[in-house]
Amino acid sequence: MEMIIGIVAGILTSVSMVPQLVKVIREQDVTNLSPLMIGVLLSGVGLWVVYGLMLKEWPIIISNAFSVLVNTTLLVCYFMFRKRS
Amino acid sequence: MEMIIGIVAGILTSVSMVPQLVKVIREQDVTNLSPLMIGVLLSGVGLWVVYGLMLKEWPIIISNAFSVLVNTTLLVCYFMFRKRS
Repeated sequence: MEMIIGIVAGILTSVSMVPQLVKVIREQDVTNLSPLMIGVLLSGVGLWVVYGLMLKEWPIIISNAFSVLVNTTLLVCYFMFRKRS
Repeated sequence: MEMIIGIVAGILTSVSMVPQLVKVIREQDVTNLSPLMIGVLLSGVGLWVVYGLMLKEWPIIISNAFSVLVNTTLLVCYFMFRKRS
């Protein structure tokens, strides 16, 4: 039961980050992104993955690993697109 | 040990959402916010709170309860400031 709630929670919070990424990739505009905040968020979700591994709770591990991926892509986009403007 | 990592992770992910809220309140500009995405995120973090309560893991409960608060404020701001523009 916790597993199901955790998985649904993970899907919802993961899905809500995707439009931000799509917008940045489509518009190639990163003026509204703060690299510092992406860095802080990246450290945070990275630690959540460690926490999930310690508890052996898969919903925590998978949804935060996905967040690590999205935020790493955002950070890469930031440095790629910043040079163009 | 998990507790400490969970608390640090929670603080980092929570802190990274604050600048967004400060920016919206200061500029009173919500054109870049998507109410649908805030709603999805709100349901997601709400479910994480339920999940945390089930596992009795305080770092999950507290950091997601904080996210619920930030996102509810963002949603309220959206409907308040949308009328002005």
